[in-house]
Amino acid sequence: MKKIILCDIGNTTADIFENGVYRKIVLTEFQPELLEGEMWYCCVNGSFSKMLGDLPNWHNCATLIDWDKYYPTMGLDRIMVCEAIEDGVIVDAGSAITVDVMKDAIYKGGFIALGLRAAQEAYSRLSPALATSFNFEVDLTIMAKNTPDAITLGFLAPLIQSIKSYRNPIYVTGGDAHLLSSFLKEVIVDETLIFKGMKKLIDKGSQC
Amino acid sequence: MKKIILCDIGNTTADIFENGVYRKIVLTEFQPELLEGEMWYCCVNGSFSKMLGDLPNWHNCATLIDWDKYYPTMGLDRIMVCEAIEDGVIVDAGSAITVDVMKDAIYKGGFIALGLRAAQEAYSRLSPALATSFNFEVDLTIMAKNTPDAITLGFLAPLIQSIKSYRNPIYVTGGDAHLLSSFLKEVIVDETLIFKGMKKLIDKGSQC
Repeated sequence: MKKIILCDIGNTTADIFENGVYRKIVLTEFQPELLEGEMWYCCVNGSFSKMLGDLPNWHNCATLIDWDKYYPTMGLDRIMVCEAIEDGVIVDAGSAITVDVMKDAIYKGGFIALGLRAAQEAYSRLSPALATSFNFEVDLTIMAKNTPDAITLGFLAPLIQSIKSYRNPIYVTGGDAHLLSSFLKEVIVDETLIFKGMKKLIDKGSQC
Repeated sequence: MKKIILCDIGNTTADIFENGVYRKIVLTEFQPELLEGEMWYCCVNGSFSKMLGDLPNWHNCATLIDWDKYYPTMGLDRIMVCEAIEDGVIVDAGSAITVDVMKDAIYKGGFIALGLRAAQEAYSRLSPALATSFNFEVDLTIMAKNTPDAITLGFLAPLIQSIKSYRNPIYVTGGDAHLLSSFLKEVIVDETLIFKGMKKLIDKGSQC
């Protein structure tokens, strides 16, 4: 079987996964036509999607998705992290925080919260009095008596409580995985979850 | 005792409470110097605060607050709604959603969530794919399988769950009180809560 290289293309970077590790390339420097080998990609970036469609060694993982399992407007990257897991809650903490539930490899649904940065920016926009950073040292079980704690609690406490209420295990991935996981006990942080999902889909596709 | 009139000045309107009802005046039309009688106000608007300080018949409710009970950067309007209640959770659903807990007339702390509009705008800013309206008909107990439900659930389900986890009764006030209360069972919607808090403070002050 030919060696395959995986690539996750977002709105700012392309992550290339090879030999168990991945490297990040900012999109302005990213030249997919120079990459050799069988490339399988997941791309949420419209302009790159078009370009990659013209390259013969680049294969779109989206073509492998069983769409009956998901909903039509669901993000491709979100589907890939779900594909990685048979049972559990998958939290992808990026620009948005997606929370999805899988049971016996069936997608049970999910929800989309704002990402940490987006939430903080939204508070800042509301009022100069709320233009303060989240306090990631806060104890979410104690009600707040100052502004940084009050906005951190207001955003994080309900979200964390909600994530905990779903079935275990909890998998956390994405840029803010470490930050978010500090509020969750017994959690599996896995920054390569998207690549595991892509790999599983490809393996399944090649067996058909 | 002289008849008093209450006034709550925000960033867009002044609400004047008299004889058990209140009327809204947009700030561009609001001329406080023309109002007669003993006016007691709560003002979160910097430029009006200054102007009102110069009018002899306008009295600032902020001067009546026992600041040992609250924290220095806490919004005046938030303190007023807390003052209205001895025991319970107070949810003020405005541009931000503040959630505060009172026990035996002691402030126990709270948190600040984004308001419904601010949250919806923050999702829109994240991605065109998320620029959709909240679905206020959604069942918060069922995980979402479409984008409008996924963002509504992502914002509302954790927040509602969190509000419910505190001690009853739950009081809801502010512009989005009705919208939010539809997700809470057994809730007291009271759009005049701020005026009740102001009145209690004034009565307490005049007894001293």
